[in-house]
Amino acid sequence: MSSRCNISGLQEAKRVAIFGGTHGNEMSGIMLVNMWINNAAEIERNGLVTKPFISNPRAVEKCTRYIDTDLNRAFTPENLSAPDVEGLQYEVQRAKEISQMFGPKGSPGAYDVIFDLHNTTSNMGSTLILESSTDLFNLQMVNYIKTSTQHLNTLAKVFPCNKKIKKAMAPHTCPVLLNENPHLKYSTTRSVAKHPIGLEVGPQPQGVLRSNVFESMRTILKHALDFLEIFNSGVEFPPCTVEVFRAHERMDYPRDTNGNITAMVHPHLQDCDWEPLNRGDPMFLTFDGRTILYEGASTVYPTFINEAAYYEKQQAFMTTCREILAANAIRKTVKVKS
Amino acid sequence: MSSRCNISGLQEAKRVAIFGGTHGNEMSGIMLVNMWINNAAEIERNGLVTKPFISNPRAVEKCTRYIDTDLNRAFTPENLSAPDVEGLQYEVQRAKEISQMFGPKGSPGAYDVIFDLHNTTSNMGSTLILESSTDLFNLQMVNYIKTSTQHLNTLAKVFPCNKKIKKAMAPHTCPVLLNENPHLKYSTTRSVAKHPIGLEVGPQPQGVLRSNVFESMRTILKHALDFLEIFNSGVEFPPCTVEVFRAHERMDYPRDTNGNITAMVHPHLQDCDWEPLNRGDPMFLTFDGRTILYEGASTVYPTFINEAAYYEKQQAFMTTCREILAANAIRKTVKVKS
Repeated sequence: MSSRCNISGLQEAKRVAIFGGTHGNEMSGIMLVNMWINNAAEIERNGLVTKPFISNPRAVEKCTRYIDTDLNRAFTPENLSAPDVEGLQYEVQRAKEISQMFGPKGSPGAYDVIFDLHNTTSNMGSTLILESSTDLFNLQMVNYIKTSTQHLNTLAKVFPCNKKIKKAMAPHTCPVLLNENPHLKYSTTRSVAKHPIGLEVGPQPQGVLRSNVFESMRTILKHALDFLEIFNSGVEFPPCTVEVFRAHERMDYPRDTNGNITAMVHPHLQDCDWEPLNRGDPMFLTFDGRTILYEGASTVYPTFINEAAYYEKQQAFMTTCREILAANAIRKTVKVKS
Repeated sequence: MSSRCNISGLQEAKRVAIFGGTHGNEMSGIMLVNMWINNAAEIERNGLVTKPFISNPRAVEKCTRYIDTDLNRAFTPENLSAPDVEGLQYEVQRAKEISQMFGPKGSPGAYDVIFDLHNTTSNMGSTLILESSTDLFNLQMVNYIKTSTQHLNTLAKVFPCNKKIKKAMAPHTCPVLLNENPHLKYSTTRSVAKHPIGLEVGPQPQGVLRSNVFESMRTILKHALDFLEIFNSGVEFPPCTVEVFRAHERMDYPRDTNGNITAMVHPHLQDCDWEPLNRGDPMFLTFDGRTILYEGASTVYPTFINEAAYYEKQQAFMTTCREILAANAIRKTVKVKS
């Protein structure tokens, strides 16, 4: 990365992958990627090589999150360097293959961008997930996507009582989750690329395809690919600020000594992803009707509230802290002939 | 059943079972039943023996719908009379055990009532499922439950803009699905009892426990058990009419020659369970943006719209026809000493 007059010059992003089915029961990405494998016209852009890819085909086949272990936690150095022995967990084997195909992870030859398409049962809208606050390229991309989708939000506000418009527009708010916390960060499938970006759209039950969620994900991808095409064409993106929600803490359900949950997400918190949770606000409701309050000192912004897949990960929701990140202007580095 | 002055005399209902976990990823029934196994005070009533029971414990353990085959389709005469050989499907074995414990199915010694607790990803509210239009006892019970929950609906209407009240009240409308159609009827777990009654509450994703769905199910069960206690005490229930939705037809997603779906439930139909679908109304939206209209001659009332578990059963939704059933007055038969 070079800097001149506060403009950061960045390498062009030519090789892009779109992953669906990292979790085999998250249907929007699976259906979109399969559609694009059959007909790529919609994702083609000048100067881009775009590869749609089903990352966990056996889990997709069984419509289950994973076969042996969570693929989206499997891209650790230990796994990626594990010898190819018989009896390796399916997802560990798959992680090694994916790293070879799209990486190797951390190498100069790795793909420029991987979009990994996920669904959540939580009311998270169209969340963009970043792994680094210093990845200018991704911050600018996210800013572009947020700006491009804003006219849809305006439309939804103009017709707040129109159920049909509201439905079609629903998950277009595009909050940005920054998972840079060393205690919460995990070794994602997309981490193989130089610029990893997760897309987490909900609410959608596992195994279900909802048209509004499908169309939202499709719209975000359209804007993201547009950004890459424009960037590669040499256009300069001015400095910007991006509101992000930094992963802060994992909150588990109250449990008994056997590990069984003894309370549910409180109805006042359920579906309120990204809304402020203040000290004294209701957090859980025990089966015998007792309310458990949030007792943290400062206001947090919960997300992944009551996500189906996280019961086994001892997480009822994740708290985040709101921050504004500033990003330099960026422009493609022009190669100087030597 | 005897009839005198239009009052039907029916046997008392002393033995009652509450099944949770017939599908191992439908959490409300599982959590309620486990709670009542630990402490039955809430479900105890005078003159009743109430047994809370986890019907598919291995599926519950794995948080999956079933292990080998759908338990809620397994109570066929063939399965129940299958010899106990090694390699029998787990759910077939389990069906035989359950029929022995709570039946045998169709015998005079069978349990009087089985409530089977289910969740759905569809927006079905608190649906009561009946299997026969001539089961006066169940019709009267359903009428009692609907009447008892009406004050909650009134409350929700008084405060239509209060999000918190709306949330707490949400699935209290109690529509009744009558599955008496020989083409759609299946051999349910609850069919072991003399009076089988299904409770299907949603929307709730598989593997998720929502407090509003949990509390709705708990409320319905409370009213149902109250009805049994009152009936057994000898109180006469006057004649009534019950609005039911009779199962009519199974509608599949449009599919390609490989069986893959090529369209989604249309956004105008999604979440509109129990609302009228008229000829010419949008039904599906293809991935390339084409709307497929409903072309049936008469108005139907769709339900189980976009239920996760029914993709594999080739069902996008079920159509129903609205009917009003009339039920005689009922009273417990008083045994005359011989």
